[in-house]
Parts: sequence; C-alpha cells; structure tokens
Amino acid sequence: MTTEVAVDSRLVLTDEQVREIAATYGTPVYVIDEGHLRRRVGAFKTAFEKSHPKTELTYASKANSTLAVLRIVYSEGCLIDVASEGELRAALAAGVPAKKTHLHGNAKTAQEIKAAFDLEVAQIVVDNFEEVDMIAATDGKCPDLMLRLAPGVDPKTNAKISTGQADTKFGFNIADGSAEQALLKALLLGLPVIGVHCHVGSQLVEPDAQIGGGQALAGFVREMKQKHGYVTQVINVGGGLAIRYTDDTEAIDPQKYCDELTAGIRKGLEGTGLDPVLVQEPGRWIIGESCVTIYSVNNVKTVPTKTGRRRYVSVDGGMSDNPRPALYGSPYPVRWVSGDGRGAKPDAVVRVAGKHCESDTLFDDKALPANVRKGDYLQVLCTGAYNAAMASNYNRYSRPVSVLIREDGTHTMVQRAETWEEQFAREIVPEDLS
Amino acid sequence: MTTEVAVDSRLVLTDEQVREIAATYGTPVYVIDEGHLRRRVGAFKTAFEKSHPKTELTYASKANSTLAVLRIVYSEGCLIDVASEGELRAALAAGVPAKKTHLHGNAKTAQEIKAAFDLEVAQIVVDNFEEVDMIAATDGKCPDLMLRLAPGVDPKTNAKISTGQADTKFGFNIADGSAEQALLKALLLGLPVIGVHCHVGSQLVEPDAQIGGGQALAGFVREMKQKHGYVTQVINVGGGLAIRYTDDTEAIDPQKYCDELTAGIRKGLEGTGLDPVLVQEPGRWIIGESCVTIYSVNNVKTVPTKTGRRRYVSVDGGMSDNPRPALYGSPYPVRWVSGDGRGAKPDAVVRVAGKHCESDTLFDDKALPANVRKGDYLQVLCTGAYNAAMASNYNRYSRPVSVLIREDGTHTMVQRAETWEEQFAREIVPEDLS
Repeated sequence: MTTEVAVDSRLVLTDEQVREIAATYGTPVYVIDEGHLRRRVGAFKTAFEKSHPKTELTYASKANSTLAVLRIVYSEGCLIDVASEGELRAALAAGVPAKKTHLHGNAKTAQEIKAAFDLEVAQIVVDNFEEVDMIAATDGKCPDLMLRLAPGVDPKTNAKISTGQADTKFGFNIADGSAEQALLKALLLGLPVIGVHCHVGSQLVEPDAQIGGGQALAGFVREMKQKHGYVTQVINVGGGLAIRYTDDTEAIDPQKYCDELTAGIRKGLEGTGLDPVLVQEPGRWIIGESCVTIYSVNNVKTVPTKTGRRRYVSVDGGMSDNPRPALYGSPYPVRWVSGDGRGAKPDAVVRVAGKHCESDTLFDDKALPANVRKGDYLQVLCTGAYNAAMASNYNRYSRPVSVLIREDGTHTMVQRAETWEEQFAREIVPEDLS
Repeated sequence: MTTEVAVDSRLVLTDEQVREIAATYGTPVYVIDEGHLRRRVGAFKTAFEKSHPKTELTYASKANSTLAVLRIVYSEGCLIDVASEGELRAALAAGVPAKKTHLHGNAKTAQEIKAAFDLEVAQIVVDNFEEVDMIAATDGKCPDLMLRLAPGVDPKTNAKISTGQADTKFGFNIADGSAEQALLKALLLGLPVIGVHCHVGSQLVEPDAQIGGGQALAGFVREMKQKHGYVTQVINVGGGLAIRYTDDTEAIDPQKYCDELTAGIRKGLEGTGLDPVLVQEPGRWIIGESCVTIYSVNNVKTVPTKTGRRRYVSVDGGMSDNPRPALYGSPYPVRWVSGDGRGAKPDAVVRVAGKHCESDTLFDDKALPANVRKGDYLQVLCTGAYNAAMASNYNRYSRPVSVLIREDGTHTMVQRAETWEEQFAREIVPEDLS
C-alpha cells in the first residue's frame, strides 16, 4: 500500500486502501499515515531552522495525543506541549521524557502544578496571578517558567478558537500592565522566568495575527530589558496555522511563514542585545492533514423540504467521533468510495448526517455521486486534529479505532475501540437501588 | 443532608452540601438527587396515566445512561428507550430486562439489529427502507416493530435538536407517501408492525409541536385503517419537553400537557375504532433538573476589551463535561457558593470560562458576587441531560465523578472518574516506532 501524498498536501487514501482498512478494522475508523506525518514535521522543522539560527519546534498535543502520534512527532525532533496532567502522562506513556515537555493551561490546579514539579517538566507556561502564587508555594525544584501573554491581536477565525485578542481568558494582558506586573512579581519571588509565550488562535488562514503576536512579544521583552534589565531567553509564539479543510484553501508555505515570523521578531529585538531561542508549537498543522476518517453509508433518503427535496446520506459515525462541524460549523472535504467498485454517476448535492439522536449534520451541501448507497464508504480528509482528541461515547458508541499506515505500506491498529466492559467500568450501582 | 426540591422545580443543593460533596469527591462533579428523580418520574407517570386509560412511559436513555439513573427510572415504572447497542447494553447492565427496551436510531447497523433480535428487545423503531430490508433478512424472532414517521411539524427550538420537520434525516415522511409505502412493504414482508412513532425535537418550551405530531400520527393511522384495514396498537409521540435552563422559563405542567396531548390524539382517532396504547419517551424532562454540576473556581481575571473591561472566572471543568454551551449556545443557571462561608458582595457580570485550550466559554454574562475568587464553587443547575452522556476526555481530562444523593440524605459515588491506566488502555504503540 502506498499513499498519494506530498509534503504540502493532504493525505488521501486510494479506494482500495479505504475498502481494505474498512474491511479489516470496521468503521468509523481514523487512519493516520506515518510517512505523511513525518514529512509534515520535517518540512516545518527544516523551514523553521532555516529561518533562524536558534529554534525549537514543539507539538501541541491537544490536537491529537494518540500515543503513536506523540512517539512519531517526538522522534522527528519535536518537544511536546501538554495542556493538562493527562496530556503530560500521555507524553510520558509514549516514551517522551518530561524534560521535553511544556505544561500549559488557563486553569491549572495545585495538583497539576505539583505533578509538573515532581515529574520534572521542562517548562510551565504560567497563565495567571493565582498560578504564580501556587507555583511559589509548591515544594521542590521549580521548572523553568514562561509567562503566557495576551498580545491584543485579533485573529481572523471562529470566535471559539480565537485566543490572542485582549478580551480573552488566557494569559497576562500586555497593554494594561498585567504582563509587566506578573514578570516582576515572579522575579521578586525568585521564580525562574525564562521567557514569554503567546498563542493567538487556531486555524488561521492569514498568518498576520501570529506575526503580530511575535512582534508584540518582542516589543514587550524589549521594554522589560530597558526598564528592568530583564533578559529573555525564549520567545514562544504558539501555533495556529490553518490546514486545508476546504479544497480551495491555499496551503501555507512553512518557509515563507517562518521567514516572515522570525524576521518580524528579529526586527522587534534589534539593538537590544537579546538573542532568545524562538519556539513555535503547531498542533493542527502537524497532524491535521495526515489523517482521514472512513465512514460506511448506512442509508440514503430523499425527503421533501419547503422548497424542493433533499437527499440525506446517513453514516455510521457522527458528532461523537468528529464534533467540529456541530461545534464550529467546520467544513471537511469528503470523497466517495464505492463499496463494490462500481462507477460513479454524476454528482448530486446531499447532506451527510451522523448516527446520533439529534440532527447531527456532519457535512452539508456536499456533491457526491447520485448513486451513493448503503455499503459505500465516505473518506473524510483532514481529520487528524481535534477528532480523536475530542471523541466521546455519546449514545454509548465506542470511540473509533485509529490505524497507522506504516512507511512500508502495512497497517496496524494504534488505538483500539472500547470494549463493553470498559464502557461500564466506571459505573457503580448501589446494591439496594431498586 | 436534605435537598431543597419540589416536584416541579429544579434541584438546588445547599451551600453546605456543595462544600461537603466537593471536599469528598473533588470537582468537577455531577450530583444527582434520587428522591428528586423519583418524584419527576412519578409526577409525569401519574399525569400521563390520569390523562388516558392506556399509557406507557419510556425514558429516553440517550439523555443520561448512568446505570444508577437507568435503575431508578426503571424501578419507577419506566420502559427504557435505547438509541444504540451500547445504550441497550447499558440498560441490561442496570438490570433492565431487554423486554422493557425499545431500540431507536437513524443509521442502525446489521450488527445492532442482530443484537436487538438476539437480546430480545421489545420493539425496534424502524427508521428507513434499508432497515426494513435488514430486519427482513435477519434470522430469529423479530421484535415488534414501530415505524418512525416524520410528521412535518416545525418545532421552535435549536435547529441541531429539531427533528420533526419534513426536512429531517429521521423516519418516513408522511406527506410524500413514504410512510404508507414503508408500512405496506413491512406488512407484505410479514413483519410485525404494531404502531407508529414520532419525535419532533428537543427542549420544546411550547408543546404545540408534540401535540401536532400526535395529531399527525393519528391522522396517518386513521387513513391506514380506512385504506388498508391496518389496526395500530401503539402510538408513540416521543419526548422533547423543555426544562428550566433559565430562571424565567416557565415550568411545564405535566398534567396540562398530557391532557392536551392525549385529547388531540383521541380526537384524531374518533370513529375509527382504534384504541392504541399511547406512549411518551421523555429524557431531558425526567433527568435534566435532578442533577447539578459543581465546579471549583481556579482563577479570576479582569481584562481590557474594546469597550471596557471583562471579568473572567475560570473553573476546573468545561466543554469536556458540558459541551452544550459550545454546541448550541445553551444557557444554564449558575449559583455561587463561597469556599469558606464568607458573604457575597454585590453582583458583577462575569464570563465563566472552562479549562480547555480554546475559548471554552461556559456561561456568559452571568451575575456573580464581585468577590468571587479562587477556592469558591459554582453550582450549575439542570445538568442531568446530555452532560455525562456527551462527556469526553478532551485534553485528556478524566470524565467527572457522578454522585447520588440518596433519599436518606447520604451520598454515594455512582460513576467514578477514569484512572490514568484506563485513559491509556486503548493505546497500542508499535514496538519499532521511534
């Protein structure tokens, strides 16, 4: 088995691959291509290193913390950004040393901070004043600290995944002086603040906001050097680059992007003598296009509407394996695969619906062959990010299998479905309940 | 411990209960009140039985299939409506006999239909023509069949949970003749069709749509009797009644509602000689108001906005334990509980944000005491429906504990959190992956 992929393009399985994997593992199933993923990491890492002498690439594991994925991106030279103790433990379980992880989060608990100390993460990215106090009160060797800042740039994306504007729950605001106060407070407490961080949002088609965020950080550390002699060792501008959820989204060129980003920061630092390591932490851009989901078509139904007729194609997955259409109205590219090798008739416009007990519209206004029917498959592209990571057991469906296509073309299961026993393992029915 | 509840009102814990349960089980935590739940079932069942001589009340377990909940509602005389093999197995695990369950679903698989035959469910609610063929092709004794119909009524609710209109993935359309065709096809195949079903939508504040749905079903079975001599034994009008997600939502009076609903159906059947059992299957109405979620406040932050300042209150839960605000913009009533018993200052308007790595706005524009701070709790009402059922491990957080307050005032855990081992039990890392 080989896959039709290029570094700058999306994973698409052949029809034979779709049928073979569906027959082997059942559907719905997530399929990750190892070579594609390695090439995505490599392309970004190379571009970033070429753009600036001192860089570190971190993978935002919230996008997909399947252990095999963590292992692959780590082996390609990424550090691992974790947003909870659970993601930290996932990284450890994947064989990533804690010293190669950064702990994020806007509402860390004392327990999470203690775990970061005890397990010896490389960095904690500090979000708020309460956290500064909690860290100062924690026993043990304090990891290096980064301050998460709100740079006050408004990215062009869905409000639910927009985080860099001033009006955000995340970080210390630069403009109102909170960032400076936080830095001074932490330094006065003797805490090891090594740099600053921002993340302006997700699925950003125009990278201006990230570049603006980097420049805002550069401006802040310049001012802190001038006013307080503070020497920043690290500037981390987060992630957020868009992937090609629609066929007409242009692929972002990592080299062009990294060149612009790092040039902007260097310009902001000119004359300061500061020479920090620059860090980025893409998640979606790394894993998103390296994975597809395969669904089976369970039935096709044409119904009257107020203005005509609509064709519904119901599949055996839905918002439990991909909540993003319901959450954000996110589009996905959908490819038809005939179940029996017959040809496609001309397209009809359909609504692809999931199996859950509500509308559960997955993909609306999709052109699929008019002869789509029960037993066919749909291959949905770009499902690597925030699909497996957000999957639920809604309607008591087991979460899907994840399959890894190895570089030699073989395939293997890297995440299995839940058993019924596992589905009910958390349940405790009091004996006298009747 | 006693709770401040009435049959027609929402569960609210006392401040002492909130602090005790938070200290005992940690947060976030779902808290279900057994007596409240039993009284909700009882109130609806009594009203329904008073409104009509032949009734059956079914609980839509998709709303919350925690086994202890299933056991309680079953013991109060509900049948259990299941929407998947997993929900069926949950009912069985809770001690409900399969003969007391109905299998739903718009995209049932052959495997699910086989399980319904083998485990001997009472009814399968048939959604589409492909399913009629699958059922006819399945070996074994066929359960009683109900036909799900699309009555073509437009409920006033969020489009994502609106299902009774003609333009829906669910059921056989009445107006375009699909329903009649499905009935004739099933009868010609010798399948045991005992009645018809509809479910017009969820969280319906005005019950006109359900009443309209019932009348549409009555009109359909009248016509089928006249044209084909078909005698309907069951009419099931589904569920969908609203609960009080906002303080100014009026509580629905079950007696008034059941009286209107059954009168409408009886009127539609007048002169036909038909005397079917009437069935309803509420889910949210039964469990929604009998449960609260307790969160801890982790930090409070005031930030500049374009027009002024906004206060963020970040809690230790979020879209992983309650995705409904992100999915549907659903409101919830939120009550402040001081962590240390100090008094409330006058209210300020805040945005309650979750802990996940995106905006994760849970509850916006909420009036909470201006002195809310880390260590306080928030008690969120009406979280019994579609919270535990939809919970995910996003950001690798374990799903919350569910606690049951027993009728004697004691409390006990009925759903525990996942262990780290369980979080990673599905993962398989190929040995040669590096």
